[in-house]
Amino acid sequence: MRKKKILLLSGGVGGAKLADGFAQILPATDLIIAVNTGDDFQHLGLSISPDLDSVTYMLAGLASAERGWGRSDETWSCIETLRRIDSETWFQLGDRDLALHLHRSMKLARGTSLEVVTAEIASKLGVRHKIVPMTEAPVRTIIESYAERYSFQEYFVRLQCRPQMTGYRYEGARWATPSHGLLEALHDPELAGIMIAPSNPILSIGPILAIPTVRDAIEKTTVPVVGVSPIIKGAAIKGPAAKILQELNIGASAGAVAQFYGDLLDHFIVHPDDAGAPWSSNAKRHVADILMQSEEDRRRVAHSCLALLDIT
Amino acid sequence: MRKKKILLLSGGVGGAKLADGFAQILPATDLIIAVNTGDDFQHLGLSISPDLDSVTYMLAGLASAERGWGRSDETWSCIETLRRIDSETWFQLGDRDLALHLHRSMKLARGTSLEVVTAEIASKLGVRHKIVPMTEAPVRTIIESYAERYSFQEYFVRLQCRPQMTGYRYEGARWATPSHGLLEALHDPELAGIMIAPSNPILSIGPILAIPTVRDAIEKTTVPVVGVSPIIKGAAIKGPAAKILQELNIGASAGAVAQFYGDLLDHFIVHPDDAGAPWSSNAKRHVADILMQSEEDRRRVAHSCLALLDIT
Repeated sequence: MRKKKILLLSGGVGGAKLADGFAQILPATDLIIAVNTGDDFQHLGLSISPDLDSVTYMLAGLASAERGWGRSDETWSCIETLRRIDSETWFQLGDRDLALHLHRSMKLARGTSLEVVTAEIASKLGVRHKIVPMTEAPVRTIIESYAERYSFQEYFVRLQCRPQMTGYRYEGARWATPSHGLLEALHDPELAGIMIAPSNPILSIGPILAIPTVRDAIEKTTVPVVGVSPIIKGAAIKGPAAKILQELNIGASAGAVAQFYGDLLDHFIVHPDDAGAPWSSNAKRHVADILMQSEEDRRRVAHSCLALLDIT
Repeated sequence: MRKKKILLLSGGVGGAKLADGFAQILPATDLIIAVNTGDDFQHLGLSISPDLDSVTYMLAGLASAERGWGRSDETWSCIETLRRIDSETWFQLGDRDLALHLHRSMKLARGTSLEVVTAEIASKLGVRHKIVPMTEAPVRTIIESYAERYSFQEYFVRLQCRPQMTGYRYEGARWATPSHGLLEALHDPELAGIMIAPSNPILSIGPILAIPTVRDAIEKTTVPVVGVSPIIKGAAIKGPAAKILQELNIGASAGAVAQFYGDLLDHFIVHPDDAGAPWSSNAKRHVADILMQSEEDRRRVAHSCLALLDIT
């Protein structure tokens, strides 16, 4: 049996970049991206899956490079009008983005699974590789700040990550099972490696690993588990990862993230600037330029990951 | 008690023009427009009230004159994207229009009444006069064509009024009660007259009159009931009224419409071209130019209506 398939665990924008790197290299059948749904939420009656959409837009070549989120060629007529009628406008809804939320909400209400809707949308937008939600279950990431509890979007969008994070919970994760696609990938005899994207360990990867069947399968897998550091020289490439890792006393360093993933991890790729930093994780440290700005960067980082696998 | 208030029963576009005529003349406190909701429907999970929105856009100065429906300064990014992902696109949803549907759906789902949401939206868009739905109840106009039954939108939008109409029903009307605003207006001691807009008698005015309390109040009212003909020389000014009136053997003439309204009607204003046509209605026929193309036309027709009242 040829081992050649890659499973990537991914959050939104950062993960989407590595997903794109793999998608540039691997045939459609050899890549599956399992995406965090802990940030999914209801807004204006719509079912919104921000990370799934970020990965979909990136692989469809529709992600906005300038804005860093959402899609390119976007217009904002609907939210302008919502603002005019004093409706809820704290969440930025582009007109084209809205179409996905409307379609997904309608399909989910009719009983279609999130996995099927996600696959249909991605396919219509020209994505060839497989994007699946981590689960169909309503896992919700909750941010704790002393006595306060915030939903992900409240914390991330409305409060712009200002509250000090003192804890977190993945509500519903304990009872969640992986989506069909993710479960199948975890046990696929052709699986060559499991990749952990340089996404936020707490907010993006944590929810995926909190699904008992997923964690269990990754603990027991015989294929290499390879992570890419979301932290370079103590700072996050994007987003609040460094702040959160510090607030939770995990430490804002590549080494601390590797330790956070613990025995799940076999290999961890860090930036050259972090090559000499203290290292106490059991995972093997590898050094590569992991900054992903251009399409070529993304391909290069994907190649660095694949180089650690024994693809036959 | 000064009798000076006007209640206008209205459908969408045609009714909205007369509403605008009155709104140009009357102070905000002296006009209430009760609008058909028999065409309201759910689409992509949204609660859509086409006639309420048409009247709102018209009075807000936002109606598209070129298109004849929807609003001006509209963009179409969302529906373009819905088309790209093969979603439901038979109903034209503009991006700005969508904002109203999203906001209304959210508010209704939270238990706000359609009357309150309608008032809030209209007020935010700068409308000063009162626009109310005919009822909060789910009255639905059903078009019968031999053995087939169609919802209004199926018939009107999807099938473009092609099926021969052999009958109709206002589902739910029997158990519906008028909205607070409409009920209050019907019994307002200051009411000077009830106006029936030149809207489709079957599809737009019929559902309002099918609410038992409304019909009863109009039958018993002591104030004049004044209609404006939607038919000029056997043709509808807009829409399928003439075709439908013929198919139902009511007859596509101003006189036939007056007879259709029966004893509810005291006065009926017809176009000069219909001044000499046979007349067998008990309502008094008045002749005036009832074509409304410009803002001035609308004001003129409103004045023709008001001239028949005894405003003190």
